[in-house]
Amino acid sequence: MVVVGAGLAGLTAARELLRAGLEPLVLEARDRVGGRTLGRTADDGTVLELGGQWLADGNERMGRLAREAGATLFRNHDEGADLLEMSGELRHQRGAVPPLKPLALLDVALARFRLDRLVAAVPVRTPWHAPDAARLDDTSIGDWLDRHTRSREGRALLDLAFTTMWGAEPHRLNLLQALAYIGSTGKFDNLTTTKIQDRITGGAAGVARFLADGLGERVLLEAPVTAIRLTAGGVEAESAQGAVRARRAVIAVPPQLAADIRFEPGLPHDRATALRSVPMGAVTKVSALYDRPFWRERGLSGKALTGRGPLTAVFDNSAPGDGSPGVLVGFVPGTRARELAALPEDDRRRAVLDSLVRLFGPQAGTPGLYVEKDWAADPWSRGGYFGLPALGTMTGAVRTLAEPHGPVHWAGSETVLKDYGGMEGAVTSGERAAAEVLAAIGEAAVQPA
Amino acid sequence: MVVVGAGLAGLTAARELLRAGLEPLVLEARDRVGGRTLGRTADDGTVLELGGQWLADGNERMGRLAREAGATLFRNHDEGADLLEMSGELRHQRGAVPPLKPLALLDVALARFRLDRLVAAVPVRTPWHAPDAARLDDTSIGDWLDRHTRSREGRALLDLAFTTMWGAEPHRLNLLQALAYIGSTGKFDNLTTTKIQDRITGGAAGVARFLADGLGERVLLEAPVTAIRLTAGGVEAESAQGAVRARRAVIAVPPQLAADIRFEPGLPHDRATALRSVPMGAVTKVSALYDRPFWRERGLSGKALTGRGPLTAVFDNSAPGDGSPGVLVGFVPGTRARELAALPEDDRRRAVLDSLVRLFGPQAGTPGLYVEKDWAADPWSRGGYFGLPALGTMTGAVRTLAEPHGPVHWAGSETVLKDYGGMEGAVTSGERAAAEVLAAIGEAAVQPA
Repeated sequence: MVVVGAGLAGLTAARELLRAGLEPLVLEARDRVGGRTLGRTADDGTVLELGGQWLADGNERMGRLAREAGATLFRNHDEGADLLEMSGELRHQRGAVPPLKPLALLDVALARFRLDRLVAAVPVRTPWHAPDAARLDDTSIGDWLDRHTRSREGRALLDLAFTTMWGAEPHRLNLLQALAYIGSTGKFDNLTTTKIQDRITGGAAGVARFLADGLGERVLLEAPVTAIRLTAGGVEAESAQGAVRARRAVIAVPPQLAADIRFEPGLPHDRATALRSVPMGAVTKVSALYDRPFWRERGLSGKALTGRGPLTAVFDNSAPGDGSPGVLVGFVPGTRARELAALPEDDRRRAVLDSLVRLFGPQAGTPGLYVEKDWAADPWSRGGYFGLPALGTMTGAVRTLAEPHGPVHWAGSETVLKDYGGMEGAVTSGERAAAEVLAAIGEAAVQPA
Repeated sequence: MVVVGAGLAGLTAARELLRAGLEPLVLEARDRVGGRTLGRTADDGTVLELGGQWLADGNERMGRLAREAGATLFRNHDEGADLLEMSGELRHQRGAVPPLKPLALLDVALARFRLDRLVAAVPVRTPWHAPDAARLDDTSIGDWLDRHTRSREGRALLDLAFTTMWGAEPHRLNLLQALAYIGSTGKFDNLTTTKIQDRITGGAAGVARFLADGLGERVLLEAPVTAIRLTAGGVEAESAQGAVRARRAVIAVPPQLAADIRFEPGLPHDRATALRSVPMGAVTKVSALYDRPFWRERGLSGKALTGRGPLTAVFDNSAPGDGSPGVLVGFVPGTRARELAALPEDDRRRAVLDSLVRLFGPQAGTPGLYVEKDWAADPWSRGGYFGLPALGTMTGAVRTLAEPHGPVHWAGSETVLKDYGGMEGAVTSGERAAAEVLAAIGEAAVQPA
């Protein structure tokens, strides 16, 4: 069995295949495993999370894997006032209600009533069965907001929420996808509430390393797969390190990257279209390390939203316990990420730290370590957080993303609807793909040779 | 193995035990299986649902069982205007926003922001780990609403919502339990949105009958268990049909009923307290059958909320397809149920039909069949929809509800936090209890005799 991609999806698939007595070989393009999870260890041992890091309540598979890997989960810090920088003002949010002007607050509240109702009508696992699915699929979140918001400030907060969480501006976001995503993850409330999120000691990428350790030499790094040939006996995967034959393949890379693999014979039209219909969002994630979480001493939670940029959202990402050393993590999503990327390194750093100083004071301007990760510039992710189905594709080609193509199976967090785009979804997809392979092989075994 | 109770929890546990090669015997007090699921078949074959009936998106276990049982799922009707009877007026709700006066609407919107934030901080499976858990546990929803609502109408809608969904007035509801329940089921939005709900063709009780069929003579009806004795070899369950010895027992009845079983030796204080700390809510469910769903012709969805009573909520419960025959299902929760129960049968019927006429017009007054089920009057349920932890008990005794007591295991939808109180939770609990039994027996097998 050949598995393409050593992110959480591919590693999970390989582990399940190995457990079932098969011999998987994982081909990974990068010089590391972990895909969109990535840690950077500071001199003092603190792991800065540069990729996926949060587990929502109910992400049981990832929680179990983390514990198997010897890590523990800890709750993200959530005490003190949140900040909202809006209409040129820095406002404190101490309770649950966003500090907006009255009309803006009403606007946001009404939008939520309306979104809730839409979300409730969309089946998470089969959004194309929603009433009016085709119309929702053809509509962008931006179009919807144009029609359903009236206040400048309310709209600005909603824009911020969507852009931050999806890694693209609302006019690029597919309403049907967004509704299914909200229904699956409950994540839209993240901006107005603080959803329970757990972090993993030692960093989320440790889970991928643990899975890879269990596979030993069955993971081949720096082996980008350029072609998949369907043969009489199964598949042949051509990589930088030579060709590998196997009975079946699991492709566990994002659709946008899978689209660059040459299939022989070529993929059917629908499948090829599907892979090209889910371009990645864009996000640059930054981390700033300080001696201690000084903002907490001033009664701040470390959470902030700002419309001024380049950062749109900041969270306290400090160590558990007393939070020392202190870490602020920030997100620069969508076009802001592309604009930031165009600047020289020093200017990028200054722009981000200026944001942090505006929010948290001068101490924020001199971190002991500053790290940024531009996921759109990473050739083996080409974006983040996840793939964004183009308008009109959810009820069409994208429905087929998870369907096997002969001996080729598909994994990755874009091939599930529940927990789409996250670590839990990646693991689920890997388990599902492995189960498909086992079922197919079981069937093949009883067929006459 | 002896299983007490042939609701979905007990039957699921027994099925899993049988599958594992053990011989379960299910002792059921009633003359039927199904517990809090119950159907009544009209002369024309229409099944009126008198108990649990709805599957939420994600209730996968029940969905799978229903399909195994040969049933299919169909979406509840959701087209047309909802009705809200409030402040003496009958209002139509066509979009997502409740037709409230502006201040009331703001009040409800702010309450939802605040509830969302609280819900987000409560881990669904371990609510006692929430920050401030003890304080939340000591607070009633009513107290919380007293502090956080300002408008009469907004408060009235929220009261209606909680009372209808929990089967008790807000001052009896444990805030911590309510938050965990909302987090687990997403159900609070039910009143302002219309959450996806599926129904089961032939009625939900058909799933229980299917499970019972698979167990054959291993289900004993009219065998209420009065005592459980812990013996050297395991347990002895005394029922109206004689004593049964077994290595282990699964008690799959609501805590309030389990509390009436005599344990020898007596249960430890905490466990005994736990069983007495979860009294049932109260609800009377009524169904009215009509030739066709006439309200749809008038652009009504069949969904209504009313503060006037005795009904507080009505839904379209018609057959799939064109909806003929038409069925309206209504709920009379909490003290309203107790007040209604005090009236003679004719008066009860008249009071309920008067509500329906007020909402849906004179045609609603003459159903072809009218059925009511007062769950509080049912000696083997003694209430509905589910057990309501008393104030202060969630962080205390109630935490132990699912913990085995020697050879005695506990199932039932009150012993899970995820999908608490519903059919999915019942099935989950039965699977969990069976797994516990199997694990315990496995361990026992390797111990020296």
